[in-house]
Amino acid sequence: MLIVAYDGTNYNGWQLQPNVATIEGVLNDRISTLLKEDVHVIGASRTDAGVHAKGAVAVFDTDSSIPGEKFSFAINAELPDDIKIMSSREVRVDFHPRKTECRKMYCYSILNDTFESPMLRLYSDWVHGPLDEKVMAEGAKYLVGEHDFAAFCSVGSYVETTVRTIYEIRVERKDKLVEISVTGNGFLYNMVRIIAGTLISVGQGRIKPWEVKSILESKDRTKAGMTAPAKGLCLVGYQFEDEIFVVDK
Amino acid sequence: MLIVAYDGTNYNGWQLQPNVATIEGVLNDRISTLLKEDVHVIGASRTDAGVHAKGAVAVFDTDSSIPGEKFSFAINAELPDDIKIMSSREVRVDFHPRKTECRKMYCYSILNDTFESPMLRLYSDWVHGPLDEKVMAEGAKYLVGEHDFAAFCSVGSYVETTVRTIYEIRVERKDKLVEISVTGNGFLYNMVRIIAGTLISVGQGRIKPWEVKSILESKDRTKAGMTAPAKGLCLVGYQFEDEIFVVDK
Repeated sequence: MLIVAYDGTNYNGWQLQPNVATIEGVLNDRISTLLKEDVHVIGASRTDAGVHAKGAVAVFDTDSSIPGEKFSFAINAELPDDIKIMSSREVRVDFHPRKTECRKMYCYSILNDTFESPMLRLYSDWVHGPLDEKVMAEGAKYLVGEHDFAAFCSVGSYVETTVRTIYEIRVERKDKLVEISVTGNGFLYNMVRIIAGTLISVGQGRIKPWEVKSILESKDRTKAGMTAPAKGLCLVGYQFEDEIFVVDK
Repeated sequence: MLIVAYDGTNYNGWQLQPNVATIEGVLNDRISTLLKEDVHVIGASRTDAGVHAKGAVAVFDTDSSIPGEKFSFAINAELPDDIKIMSSREVRVDFHPRKTECRKMYCYSILNDTFESPMLRLYSDWVHGPLDEKVMAEGAKYLVGEHDFAAFCSVGSYVETTVRTIYEIRVERKDKLVEISVTGNGFLYNMVRIIAGTLISVGQGRIKPWEVKSILESKDRTKAGMTAPAKGLCLVGYQFEDEIFVVDK
């Protein structure tokens, strides 16, 4: 199992696609070259173009005799600077990261300042007017628990069920940076970005915090806020069963 | 006066040069276009290629009737995403930022982790072994005060005197990030990066903290540590006379 960090700026998302750079594509290529085997990684999540990760998870089968924890060093020597394996280890052969129950944690970062920041521009959304993180936290409370999140799912995506569980949402201000941290058992297409867009509207006073409840209950995507830009989103980490993989840096 | 923030990654430093992108060049071009005048900005410091800034300072003369504090908005509309004016205001006509006494503050960031971070790679140096920030702080103390910093100046640079005053050096660890903040009345060519390189060697145990004193007294560049990479350096801000321009974000 690989814990993967990446700067998603220059990639067309995680998932392998022909003729464009993707995280999965780069990992397959570089690991195959390294091991002289045809390697196909399986990722725990398929992040969108421009989304970043500190703790994405991927697994692959190999005949290599390299010890699990040494793979990170070997693979990193082959990878470009904007993708790095933070750690690696062997897992049981039947472990499938998308078929195993887990908690996932995402963080959405918003710079709340008069002007956008050159050094944060690729890693945060930017809101230049007043943004009240306290009412954002109040609105976020209605999303915690098991709910049908159809209102927070981009249309056109097919899933068996739009019911998901959010264990926790924290909204914290660190000076001019407002961070929304969401932990759940799984997320629908664009769900975290629509939650972020809706909570930004709450923080700007355009949606009242208690209206988040009726938006959720409406199951109507048009009632929720905009889909906040990909660049503000970061996949922080996973927790599978008893094992903690949450990366906090 | 403009307070300028920039991501130095894609620039060949501050100073205007033919045929390459520089911060000064972009500012001259864009402000001249905006004001339909031939504008030449004067910067308070000429940062090297790859060095970043949160609070660089520049001034220019203009016949424009735009109020000083409105320039930031007008100029930002013309600037690329990696350069932004954080604030602007009118100053007295004889103010010259390089001929006025001031305090300058730089920050050098070091990621101390097993692997380099994709999202911090452009904004920090990377040290992968043990790095003891306490002995770094101990070594840094010898540099505080008025000294001849010839040992901390890249050879080939011509200056009248290599005597400078450092008011404060702080070395702080925030989890895996070690930050060296240096405040002084001026800095020689590569001085902060040589201080950072020397303190990294101290933190790695290759130079003893008390040896920083003899390195300083030697006035010999070859005795100090390496010049740490440009990308870890950020010009944080200035304080001119009674006016505080230090930017802390």
